[in-house]
Amino acid sequence: MEKIGFIGLGTMGKPMALNLLKAGYNLIVNDIHPSLLKEAIDAGAERAESAKEIAERADIIITMLPDSPDVEAVVFGINGLVEGIQKGSLFIDMSTIAPATSQKVFRAMQEKGVEALDAPVSGGEVGAQQASLSIMVGGSADAFKRALPIFQVVGKNIVHIGPEGAGQVTKACNQIVVGQTIQAVAEAMTFAKKSGVDVAKVRDALLGGFAQSRILDLHGNRILERNFEPGFRVELHRKDLNIALQTARELGLSLPVTAIVAENMNALIAMGYGQKDHSALALLSEKLADV
Amino acid sequence: MEKIGFIGLGTMGKPMALNLLKAGYNLIVNDIHPSLLKEAIDAGAERAESAKEIAERADIIITMLPDSPDVEAVVFGINGLVEGIQKGSLFIDMSTIAPATSQKVFRAMQEKGVEALDAPVSGGEVGAQQASLSIMVGGSADAFKRALPIFQVVGKNIVHIGPEGAGQVTKACNQIVVGQTIQAVAEAMTFAKKSGVDVAKVRDALLGGFAQSRILDLHGNRILERNFEPGFRVELHRKDLNIALQTARELGLSLPVTAIVAENMNALIAMGYGQKDHSALALLSEKLADV
Repeated sequence: MEKIGFIGLGTMGKPMALNLLKAGYNLIVNDIHPSLLKEAIDAGAERAESAKEIAERADIIITMLPDSPDVEAVVFGINGLVEGIQKGSLFIDMSTIAPATSQKVFRAMQEKGVEALDAPVSGGEVGAQQASLSIMVGGSADAFKRALPIFQVVGKNIVHIGPEGAGQVTKACNQIVVGQTIQAVAEAMTFAKKSGVDVAKVRDALLGGFAQSRILDLHGNRILERNFEPGFRVELHRKDLNIALQTARELGLSLPVTAIVAENMNALIAMGYGQKDHSALALLSEKLADV
Repeated sequence: MEKIGFIGLGTMGKPMALNLLKAGYNLIVNDIHPSLLKEAIDAGAERAESAKEIAERADIIITMLPDSPDVEAVVFGINGLVEGIQKGSLFIDMSTIAPATSQKVFRAMQEKGVEALDAPVSGGEVGAQQASLSIMVGGSADAFKRALPIFQVVGKNIVHIGPEGAGQVTKACNQIVVGQTIQAVAEAMTFAKKSGVDVAKVRDALLGGFAQSRILDLHGNRILERNFEPGFRVELHRKDLNIALQTARELGLSLPVTAIVAENMNALIAMGYGQKDHSALALLSEKLADV
């Protein structure tokens, strides 16, 4: 069985690494916060001192990091992956980052004779724990085939979208749709509430028609039950929309409503709700309605 | 069997009236465009010269009209319904109009000893033809019970939401969510297209996760297939969003993204797409991306 290097054992990475250990993989792990390594080491993972050491010793290297600069630091920084990576290795970045960064990393790996995949996920902490993540993959068909058994350990709905960067583009699309749909549900439910109409009945009626969505079902229910504990935090969703908006500027297109939703998330963070679930967009709508 | 008066035999009203005739109801009909009456009269409906005459002769009066001023004209105008309506009659307005107008009509009917329901529908022309409309109803439980057999002839998903106006509030919520969700899908699919990624694969991947919606499925498919024939016309959806925004101003709340989507529909109309399906919001996104 191939040896897997895993870098980034945070909220998402840790349960994913534990699932790989449970499936019998040999893991070698690293995180800039050493305290995050304990559980994985207790479960049988080996500890590496640097990304470079992981690159030297693992056949497949997975990163699960917060944002594009973190991935760049791990790949290109001092004692980074490119310093140690072996020809024939496979690099899988499962972080949600800018498509352009994924493409830059892909090219750097290609120069080293290494295949790279961008494979961001959705499904949140619960999906990571239950190994039910959706995984959107960009890269070559061969690399996808090689990675598939690993993806099947940590996820369920696994789609190879296209070449390098295509996974990140898909994830950005997902975050655009999810953010705007929550905003839509928030505006509608607040409108019903301010009108004095039974919001739960409105949601029920809407679920039976064209307005149906998983967001109206799940996040609509959160709004009814006043359950704003994450879930998926506002701060992370704002980061993902920043990636979409920055990429749109580079590509040359306008995403007017995505921009407004990102601004609404900025407002939520200003209001102290950055650590709440993104369904807290309803709290901003309610503020703007005084209900 | 009670005699039904039916006013407004346009795109929606005509198939609904024909379904009621097919179910064996006696119908007396009127429209300001006499040419629209022919089919219903050929199918056995009686013709009335005015709304007042319908009010005098029918037990239950249904209106299916384009907008609030049309309903006000039929109810309060010269030879209008209130001039002839009989105590104990039931008035059902199935038009999509402002909740405040529905409430004003309700009170006027109440003064005449007449129950009124606001019962806007969704499902479009196809839903009207196939008798599969969703019907969102506001008014008393007794009036709803009396109207239910009629609703069951023309629709399927029939929900009594609350008191007078509650049906219109629900319909406005539906149009808020549907409009914004199409906008979300349009921005995401345009982003994928401009990125050079396979848009159909992105849609497939998104349908498997939190971004799932009936809009992503059906309207997303329309966008892929470049099928912008209605369906539901941009001009009508803009009218419905105007109702939502006007009502929001009266109630005192802000619907920032609903306002942007309404403006985007204004742009579509300026571009000559007013008679296209509302999924044409993708055409505006594509214009803003030069793809």
